[in-house]
Order: sequence, then C-alpha cells, then structure tokens
Amino acid sequence: MTRIGIDLGGTTVKAGLFTEEGQLLSKTEFPTARENGRTGLLSDIASHVWTMVLEQGVPLSDCAAGIGVPGPVEEGGYTEAIPNLGIRDCYMGRELSALLDIPVRILNDANAAAFGEYWTGAGRGSRSMICVTLGTGVGAGIVLNGEIVGGAHGLGGELGHVFVNPDETERCGCGATGCLDQVASANGVARYAKKLYDLPYPTAKDVCDAAKAGDALAEKTLRYCMSFLGKALCMVGYTVDPELVVIGGGLSKAGPYLLDIIYDSYKDLPKLTTKRMQFKLATLGNDAGITGAARYAVK
Amino acid sequence: MTRIGIDLGGTTVKAGLFTEEGQLLSKTEFPTARENGRTGLLSDIASHVWTMVLEQGVPLSDCAAGIGVPGPVEEGGYTEAIPNLGIRDCYMGRELSALLDIPVRILNDANAAAFGEYWTGAGRGSRSMICVTLGTGVGAGIVLNGEIVGGAHGLGGELGHVFVNPDETERCGCGATGCLDQVASANGVARYAKKLYDLPYPTAKDVCDAAKAGDALAEKTLRYCMSFLGKALCMVGYTVDPELVVIGGGLSKAGPYLLDIIYDSYKDLPKLTTKRMQFKLATLGNDAGITGAARYAVK
Repeated sequence: MTRIGIDLGGTTVKAGLFTEEGQLLSKTEFPTARENGRTGLLSDIASHVWTMVLEQGVPLSDCAAGIGVPGPVEEGGYTEAIPNLGIRDCYMGRELSALLDIPVRILNDANAAAFGEYWTGAGRGSRSMICVTLGTGVGAGIVLNGEIVGGAHGLGGELGHVFVNPDETERCGCGATGCLDQVASANGVARYAKKLYDLPYPTAKDVCDAAKAGDALAEKTLRYCMSFLGKALCMVGYTVDPELVVIGGGLSKAGPYLLDIIYDSYKDLPKLTTKRMQFKLATLGNDAGITGAARYAVK
Repeated sequence: MTRIGIDLGGTTVKAGLFTEEGQLLSKTEFPTARENGRTGLLSDIASHVWTMVLEQGVPLSDCAAGIGVPGPVEEGGYTEAIPNLGIRDCYMGRELSALLDIPVRILNDANAAAFGEYWTGAGRGSRSMICVTLGTGVGAGIVLNGEIVGGAHGLGGELGHVFVNPDETERCGCGATGCLDQVASANGVARYAKKLYDLPYPTAKDVCDAAKAGDALAEKTLRYCMSFLGKALCMVGYTVDPELVVIGGGLSKAGPYLLDIIYDSYKDLPKLTTKRMQFKLATLGNDAGITGAARYAVK
C-alpha cells in the first residue's frame, strides 16, 4: 500500500507520496483554490494528487490517502467548521474518497504534524508524546500507544485554547479570553513584544533574532510568552503525562535557544514527582503534516 | 481467573474479590496498619486478602490482584513517594506479589476509581472518559481505548494539580499555588466558605446541605469552587477530549444538584465547537477503587 499525505492549509496545499514505511517518494505544493468553494477545492486537490501519483508510475488503486485540515475533525470524519476556509458541516474525507476512488481518512492538521513527527521525526521510538506546533496559532497533537488522540468531539490536542493567561484583555478567535494561542503563537509573541515593551519588531522571528543577538527586552518577551506554554505543558503532564514533548512550527526555527526557554518555563514549576518530560525540536519541518496524514491514511 | 481488588487508603484498606466479569463476590475493610512501616503494612494486607479468598473457597493460585495506592505510580510499578503513608522509592506491587505468590499490578487510586466506573459503573459502554473524584483532594483518572492513561511518569489524570486559580494565596501540598485541589476538593469548598463569606459550615457536606436548603452564599461558594473544575474540564476537553465526565467522591453525594453546577460551569465557557462532553454521577461509591483495581489486575 502506497500512502498519500495531504496537508490542507489556508494558503497552500501540500501533498506527498510515501512508501508503506514512511519514505517520501515525491511531493507537490499548490495554492489553496478557495474561490470555487469546497467542491472546487476538493476537485483541485484530487487532480493534483492524481498527477503526482501518475508521474511516479504508481497505480492509484494501490494507494490510500490521509488529509489534514485546519479545524476540529470528529470521530467518523465529520467537520463542524473550518473558519479559515469558510467550510462547514461536511465529511471532506468521504468527498475526496469519492473523487479519487481510494480510501481517504481525515484528521486535524496539528494532529497530522504530531503523527508525522511520531512516525519518522523527533518522536520516533517514543511511546507517548505531544507535538506542539508554534505557528500563526498554537496547535498540538497527542500520540498515545501509537495512536493519535483525536478526541470524542474532534478536540484532542487543541492546546491552543487552553486557558492560561488571566491577564489577557483581548478576545481569542474562539470567543474565550486568555487562551494559549493568544500569547505563545507567532502572532502572540509579536503582539506582546509591542504590548509589553513597545519593541520595534513586527514578527516573532524578529523578536527571536533580536533576543539571540542580546536584546534583553526581546528575550524577556519570549520568556513571558513561553511561560504560558510551560504552564500548559505542565497541565499536559498532569493529564496524559507523555514521555516526550516535541516543539515544531515556524517559531521553532529559533532552535535550541527557544527550546531551552520553553523547557525552563516548564521544569521550574513545582511538580508532584522529580521526573520530567523530555523536550526535543521537531525534525520534519514543513513535511510533518503530509507525513502524518500519510501515516494516518492506513490504520 | 478470579480478580482481587485492593484500595489502599490513608486510614483504611478495602479489598474485594471479583469474578472475571466484574461481579463482586466478597469484600473486606480494615485499618491501614501504618505503624510497622511498609513491610508490616503489606504483610497485613496479604493476610487479610488471604483470609477473604480462603473464606470464599477460591484457590489463591487462580487469582490475580490489583492495588490502588494514594500516589503516582510509574510505568513498571515504581512509586517515588506516597507522602500520606510515609512510603518512598519502592515497587509495592512486586512486594505484595512476592507475599501472596500471585501476580499483582499497581496503579494510582484515582485511576483505579476511574477504571472501576468505566468497567461496571457510570462509564460502562463509553469509549473514553475521565472520572473526577472530589474527596479530601481532587483525583482523576482517564480511560482511552479501554485503557487507563497512567502516564510515562505516573502522573496521568493528576488533575488536582492543574493550575486554575490565579487568585489563590495559599500554597498547595505539591508546592505550587492555584491548584484545582485547593479549591474544588471537599477541603477547598469548606475553606472557601469561610474565606469568601465567613459561613459557619465546617465541612463541604454542610456547605452543600445549606446550599440545597436555600442559603444563597453557600450556593455562591459552591459555584465559585466548581467554576475552577469547569475550567479544568474544559482543558481536559482540549487535550484528550473524552466522551464522558464522571463525577465521584464524597462531595458527589450532593447528587444532581452539584452535577448541574459543575456542568453549568463547563458548558458556559466558550468552545471551538458546539458539541459537549456528557456528565454523569459515579455509581459505585466506595467500591469504585476496589473494582478498578480488580479490573487492572489482569491486562
């Protein structure tokens, strides 16, 4: 069985062809065709996937696909809402399966990235892990006993909306106030650099670069923002208690410097026992999503 | 295989004999013999279990046992510390196994209670659940795919030490400040009744009784304390997202009245999707621990 992994993002779609064991054979990337609604988007994805598979000389009938989408996916593949794509109330996996005439399984994109890191990335060989994706927002996926924790209502690993910050004044996109997403995402870091110290850094990358170059207030901003991730991970340690924490997403490009800040903010909180979760940087970069979707394609 | 379930508490030990399918054949209860250290305690437990099994005419060699203990238990059965019993650095399951000459598996007591409710109680037939035990402290256990989530470091389901209350001024036994345990446990409810409104109710039961009888401040106290449980459960919904929440422990004797307060405090928080976890009261009462330990006895 050859595996197809698809990562449906707000601006681009990535797709990859993988062997049964997880070796990447080919990949492709194309803009998210939002203009023709869900049906148009899925047709476009199907045609790109079909081309990719054809070019590799693999019979499509030997393939199974997984697709990661930027919203909660319930057991059974139902999606209530993907606000970024203006999609509601559907079973996109089934629709894509009908178009391609192969089995398609659907999961949340952060869960796909986590499953990818677990399969062939930083989490390989671990028994339990959480992978936190620090990008525009904060996503996460939890793997226990070799399976992704999707959740009964599709909210497994939605760490971005855990309440962490009682001092937050703005409202999160989800309607709540004080979500992890608001402070520990790339957007959050950039916003707090302005809010806390009026720093002249428009992006989180700028804040990280300045901090590494010795700007004490930039580093203070990062430590402030990541302190909430530390709190959230402490809480993860008191619910599923995974062996390993993997940090990925755009912000994780700041490397070991950022990983140390995150680890510090977690390890220094009081704990019931002396053992600590391990922390690692993600290794698959932008391929994590397609890799995990491909892993999820076949149970 | 006949199952033995043991619930090791700070003041009493309960033990029960169960059929393979979970029917309770016999049970016994005796004071926790703390005075002779761990070895004396385990010998005392072994002798009571031996008597119970003998009286039922079941050959001990046909039995396997599980024991729930009031502290974190790591994978492999290692216990770093059970402060309430003054026990440290040991494998109590193995020691009891050597004394009884039968297999013994060890788990955390709140996890045992959760596994019991999952097996033959309120969680029967559910696919995923968390059982929260509101007693002197707040304990919890998570069941996913038919297995208890023990955690890589024995901290699975330790919801009592999740940070929820930034306004807390006292320190929790774990060393942190603002733990769920400090506000939503029986101790927490009694403490806040005094602290918030100087109410003349020494115990959580008194607060519940007064609230039910129409004391508005007692009800306000309960709503305040349970609001933090609602927050913590919201967070559980964003990590493992179980189908079902079961509320047990001494405080749960306040019944549907308390369950409604807890559910209100959870459901009214903003959420990413419209679906909600189900809430039920525990049904096994004090037998939850021995039942779950018996379930855990055999994999």
